[in-house]
Amino acid sequence: MLTLFHSPLSSASRFIRLVLGEYNISTQLIVEHEWARRHEFLALNPAGHVPVLLAEQEVPLSGAIVIYEYLDETHGSLRQENKLFPENPLDRGEVRRLNDWFLNKFENEATRHIVRERIYKREMPLTIGGGAPDSQILRNARANIAPHMNYLNWLCASRDCLVGSKLSYADLAAAATISVLDFLGEIDWDQSPAAKDWYMRIKSRPSFRPLLTDRIRGIVASPHYADLDF
Amino acid sequence: MLTLFHSPLSSASRFIRLVLGEYNISTQLIVEHEWARRHEFLALNPAGHVPVLLAEQEVPLSGAIVIYEYLDETHGSLRQENKLFPENPLDRGEVRRLNDWFLNKFENEATRHIVRERIYKREMPLTIGGGAPDSQILRNARANIAPHMNYLNWLCASRDCLVGSKLSYADLAAAATISVLDFLGEIDWDQSPAAKDWYMRIKSRPSFRPLLTDRIRGIVASPHYADLDF
Repeated sequence: MLTLFHSPLSSASRFIRLVLGEYNISTQLIVEHEWARRHEFLALNPAGHVPVLLAEQEVPLSGAIVIYEYLDETHGSLRQENKLFPENPLDRGEVRRLNDWFLNKFENEATRHIVRERIYKREMPLTIGGGAPDSQILRNARANIAPHMNYLNWLCASRDCLVGSKLSYADLAAAATISVLDFLGEIDWDQSPAAKDWYMRIKSRPSFRPLLTDRIRGIVASPHYADLDF
Repeated sequence: MLTLFHSPLSSASRFIRLVLGEYNISTQLIVEHEWARRHEFLALNPAGHVPVLLAEQEVPLSGAIVIYEYLDETHGSLRQENKLFPENPLDRGEVRRLNDWFLNKFENEATRHIVRERIYKREMPLTIGGGAPDSQILRNARANIAPHMNYLNWLCASRDCLVGSKLSYADLAAAATISVLDFLGEIDWDQSPAAKDWYMRIKSRPSFRPLLTDRIRGIVASPHYADLDF
């Protein structure tokens, strides 16, 4: 069985859990706190980030982009149907662009800071930066959510899925990111009706179920988080 | 002919120029200043970053990761030999991990800040952040070069190329990043002898020649920058 080192509120980890779910690959999950910089984990991935997948022969694959390309090559591309990459190389380029947008750009401009200020800093020792949230950082990160949601809403208004009419890795990457912010009650859904319709569809997939039942110590999810019809 | 929007001191742009050179794909080059946020360019890539490749039918492909995967699918994977991806999916994972390391991690911790403070801020209007370099930012970015060079030196000391014994995208991504810092005279080669040997080999490839003859207005390259034996 494969092993995934992940963190429940990491968008990149959630994305890989969704891909594993879509491919019905059963995986042992191990929670890793990046901020703890555990030696054994740094030996697997010197960059210190989740997710890390222990693949065949226990070889570590580090980072969401590396892992999903590997899972596509070893599982996705072998499928007859319901592939998560479109056939056309230009469309695959668009999927990869959106994956980077949601897993890196959106993450670095908003999600990462909100998770760190609101959640991680409560658990981290003071000596490594733990403590009360920095309200200025939170304010800046929150201000960055709206333009990203407008962009997602615009994408969802013009197409069934983010790239064309079929589910792709881009839908899973975007939904993973959104699910973290939705868990924390940071999304104003009234402003993004097309994105809301799209997210309800992705959230109803069986691969999403484990994410909706995640329990995180000391945190209560936003009231509608696990509702499939919210 | 394909068109590449690039910037001479962008590691990601240089990486794509090297890949195009290795595949002998002749390309029209257009210099784009990201900081100018030109409307026509933002319409091609809303993220605002170079490189952007106009592929078949003028479809824009944005970002180095998207572009090299596209070039691999449409050119690299069709080759009989001298492919830039190894055959084994786990080795391809290692290539992708290192590409991310050099093009994103190293870039965001060091190169990007040095280029912005030393070069771009001289050209940018004061109204959008131009002016004298911030010495604190420069100091922090420079301090981050050494651990990255130590890591590269460690990789080079144990293998001929960064992944196994054959040239791969990882060598081109790392050399692209290093070449920007070397152009600016920011690398202390005495501390990294194995990396120096490796870089001399990569730098001698025909694909590298156009990068060594780049002239950038108002900037003199470090004395050894274009020497193949330095």
